Amino acid sequence: MTYCIGLKINNGLVFMSDTRTNAGIDNISTFRKMHVWEKPGERVIVIMSAGNLATTQAVVSLLDERVKAAKDRVQTLLETPSMYQTALLVGNTLREVIARSARGGHKAEAFQASLIVGGQIEGSEPRLFMIYPEGNFIESTEDTPFFQIGETKYGKPIIIRAYDPDMSFAETAKLLMVSFDSTLKSNLSVGLPLDMTFYERDSLKVGLRKRIGADDPYYRKISDGWSNALKVAFKSLPDFGYESEAKKNPQR
Amino acid sequence: MTYCIGLKINNGLVFMSDTRTNAGIDNISTFRKMHVWEKPGERVIVIMSAGNLATTQAVVSLLDERVKAAKDRVQTLLETPSMYQTALLVGNTLREVIARSARGGHKAEAFQASLIVGGQIEGSEPRLFMIYPEGNFIESTEDTPFFQIGETKYGKPIIIRAYDPDMSFAETAKLLMVSFDSTLKSNLSVGLPLDMTFYERDSLKVGLRKRIGADDPYYRKISDGWSNALKVAFKSLPDFGYESEAKKNPQR
Repeated sequence: MTYCIGLKINNGLVFMSDTRTNAGIDNISTFRKMHVWEKPGERVIVIMSAGNLATTQAVVSLLDERVKAAKDRVQTLLETPSMYQTALLVGNTLREVIARSARGGHKAEAFQASLIVGGQIEGSEPRLFMIYPEGNFIESTEDTPFFQIGETKYGKPIIIRAYDPDMSFAETAKLLMVSFDSTLKSNLSVGLPLDMTFYERDSLKVGLRKRIGADDPYYRKISDGWSNALKVAFKSLPDFGYESEAKKNPQR
Repeated sequence: MTYCIGLKINNGLVFMSDTRTNAGIDNISTFRKMHVWEKPGERVIVIMSAGNLATTQAVVSLLDERVKAAKDRVQTLLETPSMYQTALLVGNTLREVIARSARGGHKAEAFQASLIVGGQIEGSEPRLFMIYPEGNFIESTEDTPFFQIGETKYGKPIIIRAYDPDMSFAETAKLLMVSFDSTLKSNLSVGLPLDMTFYERDSLKVGLRKRIGADDPYYRKISDGWSNALKVAFKSLPDFGYESEAKKNPQR
């Protein structure tokens, strides 16, 4: 499995992904699931992927090859006139790869993958999309400022509660690390190291990129600290009035 | 969907379930998913169910009918000599119901359900089981002292972190409410009211039973309090050193 989050704040965009892939629990590998294209001063595009690894690698390879082979007549990731057209291009490439794989007679479902695409192109706002296996996609809004793909459930409650569009990059990184830590502690198929990419609004260049391993001191602080902080938070709530309820109403 | 937890502590057993069933999001109803059988001084058995409602209702009806119709030659829930035999009986009943439904030519998967069975029979320990759609089952252990069925992921991280076998009923109820609150806030298919049943070790009678609605003052306190406590916990952790990292290492 996989866990990736793309999140939009007023300051820009933040992306985080794990690196574990597995085909059965005895066949685990590390693969980068976050890919970045940049034309400094003009555009930054980040793609994260979950699902069939052969599919997602083929999508990235195709997108990349077309960027490099300028002779192709197709529009490339570095030429699309808008983020909407970028999402369309990525969605079409995903559809093309899955259709090709399914040509051998297997069902398309076997080759499924989902993508998060975000970035900014000169002259328009930073934008964030989620692309479905069918190639169609949705865009983030003020009401839904983040997308998750892969093993999304364990890490969702804290994002719902703590997200604030005015957060700084420093706070956003903390939020994403807490969300990943909850997921890592609950599901073996999501694993370290984690990849992070920051994109500062209107900078039109890639910001900080960082890989976080098990020995990263900040990650360790968050992981241990969050367990303790949760226990303190839990203790701070009033206990259920069991004794008084039991007296009032032994069996209802 | 559904969310149910059965949890074993040194004091006994605690059960909690929601009541929402849905067949499509425009077809939502309230059904009790927690069922209790009791022979005071001799046994208490609690069953919670998730999955196909026709299946789970048929299982409960069959178990109940057989308890009432003493003429049947099959052993009933009030006669099994041990909790293991009880789990076996419930598992067989589930398998029987699913097999009957599948006789019409539909796949067995369409009628799937999972059950949590817990309780105590005189002369042995309280025990807790999870029954799979296939009718086989597993028992809780010290390492895995709780079972969840239905929409289990959102509410798991807090249980993993805060569970302690020495918890009182008052603390356990708080833990389960927090776990349910995280789930309710993330997934529309799990809904209030909630049902709770407490069973005190060696009491051999049903303890407190309570239905918790949206207006329950303790539930409101936990739901609002947990959001605030989480925010405080989150604030208490150190922010990511974005500025210093970005200076050190603008693009890696």
